[in-house]
Amino acid sequence: MITPETIRAAHERIRPHIHRTPVLTSDTVDRIGGARVFFKPENFQKIGAFKARGGLNAVLQLLETEQKAGRRLGPVTTHSSGNHAQAVAFAARQVGVKAFIVMPRTAPSVKKAAVRAYGAEIIECEPTLEAREEGVREVIERTGATLIHPFDDDRVIAGQATAAWELIEDAGNDQPFDFLMAPVGGGGLLSGTGLSAHFLSPTTQVVAAEPDGAADAVLSFSSGRVEKAPVVNTIADGLLTTLSDRTLAYIREHVTDILTVSDAEIVAAMRLLWERMKIVVEPSGAVPLAALLKHPDRFAGRKVGIILSGGNVDLGKLPFSS
Amino acid sequence: MITPETIRAAHERIRPHIHRTPVLTSDTVDRIGGARVFFKPENFQKIGAFKARGGLNAVLQLLETEQKAGRRLGPVTTHSSGNHAQAVAFAARQVGVKAFIVMPRTAPSVKKAAVRAYGAEIIECEPTLEAREEGVREVIERTGATLIHPFDDDRVIAGQATAAWELIEDAGNDQPFDFLMAPVGGGGLLSGTGLSAHFLSPTTQVVAAEPDGAADAVLSFSSGRVEKAPVVNTIADGLLTTLSDRTLAYIREHVTDILTVSDAEIVAAMRLLWERMKIVVEPSGAVPLAALLKHPDRFAGRKVGIILSGGNVDLGKLPFSS
Repeated sequence: MITPETIRAAHERIRPHIHRTPVLTSDTVDRIGGARVFFKPENFQKIGAFKARGGLNAVLQLLETEQKAGRRLGPVTTHSSGNHAQAVAFAARQVGVKAFIVMPRTAPSVKKAAVRAYGAEIIECEPTLEAREEGVREVIERTGATLIHPFDDDRVIAGQATAAWELIEDAGNDQPFDFLMAPVGGGGLLSGTGLSAHFLSPTTQVVAAEPDGAADAVLSFSSGRVEKAPVVNTIADGLLTTLSDRTLAYIREHVTDILTVSDAEIVAAMRLLWERMKIVVEPSGAVPLAALLKHPDRFAGRKVGIILSGGNVDLGKLPFSS
Repeated sequence: MITPETIRAAHERIRPHIHRTPVLTSDTVDRIGGARVFFKPENFQKIGAFKARGGLNAVLQLLETEQKAGRRLGPVTTHSSGNHAQAVAFAARQVGVKAFIVMPRTAPSVKKAAVRAYGAEIIECEPTLEAREEGVREVIERTGATLIHPFDDDRVIAGQATAAWELIEDAGNDQPFDFLMAPVGGGGLLSGTGLSAHFLSPTTQVVAAEPDGAADAVLSFSSGRVEKAPVVNTIADGLLTTLSDRTLAYIREHVTDILTVSDAEIVAAMRLLWERMKIVVEPSGAVPLAALLKHPDRFAGRKVGIILSGGNVDLGKLPFSS
């Protein structure tokens, strides 16, 4: 069970290794959106995404457990084609253990290079979920590595919760946020955001956003069972995963609503962030702002905190036209 | 003559209207560059560039002069296809006077839209220097507007000087900068940077950078006369202008050296800033970092302040390949 003390301890644990990202505001965004928006730019975080928080907390907690038991921490592993791969590679390097990252052979070479730059070993596999899980099983059998799941893990969720925790501490004290917004893929960040709001700012409503082209969380949220998306086709490639029972439970408890947006709306929000705030945000990171812009009546005049989840994009393949 | 008091007064004058931009560092950039680099991200400044500082100082000083004389400030004007156009439009709006901006009809429509968004009136002209100057003459004759020159003006230079002034105050006190770096086009920012270093941090060397494809300042610096570039062809479209006698004099007095870089080196530096620091910087703004990366021996282990001059780019026409 995650308590306020769990999140506080996670924050103490990871604090020496991460950036306390700032809080950004923009008169232009406020004017266009009709709300008062406070951004938490986790694109500036280590590895370029909030995932550094959860990966670090899990690995550091593992290390503590092993040390208390008088053992040395062995290698860690995960499968991911995205930011979690870098997060685990980064966390492993911080504590000096080996990381084995199972990645689909089709993953962009720039992402593989980033994982290698942290000293991790990449195991390539076919680009299917089955192949990825099988790859991790083989690594564990061969090396005894410990799996760091990208979201179905309370240590990871407590780490992700520190982003909203900092945002509330830095900008939500004098006047509480009316809303906190985060994107939802597997639900680790959203669960953590819901928990932090619940503990630190109980009057704040947490509203999630996901792409029309990966609209599984909104179905699961409504049915109470983990559902798959009817269509999987979106530019927001960090949000393709479905929830787990664990994250669905947190989300049903602490989240008010899940809004969906089209890819065109995501690109428009992303363009606004790039052009007017001069920051590089990946499509997944622009999804909550897209939802805010889509529902002006709902957020009119309200104080809104938005977590910009990451900034890892392939600059050679951007969705902007002239 | 610009004294420390001139710059301090400029800072007091513009402070309520501008952002005090932060100081950014990046372990990755330091590792790649072999130096300790402190960035002043003026891409986050109002209008997306340092030019807001000089434009505001000039307009606010004009306002003071007129008010002291018991007169009302009339309209202002300039010709520019770039950031100075927005700066004057922005400054005029801040003090509630009309701005007439002469822009070549070939200027990107996004830039015209930005100028119009500040309430300025655009006068289109043919894309030649002669037509632009003629356009301004006509505006002045017709409206009595006061010209705000983009760099050949001590009020503008004192405004631009506040960027380096803040950088030295915020990161150059305990240990002075070994180097401050700025790009050079007309020389307003560079003159101001040289003056601020001279007054606040006299052991700091100021090193400028300009594109091979607009390498006029390096010639003028060496000959002591305002020279034209032998070739004008560069992606750094903010740096095409030649110096004036005024800026050349400041630069010869307070600048140590001017380095030149190729467009490929500019794009590589720009990509590093976008990919690793997640900030949107225009080609002109990446020129000093390109020069630092080109001369690793010169900057090895040194403390370097770099002014990132702006972030106004057309996202539909980026120079990155996959």
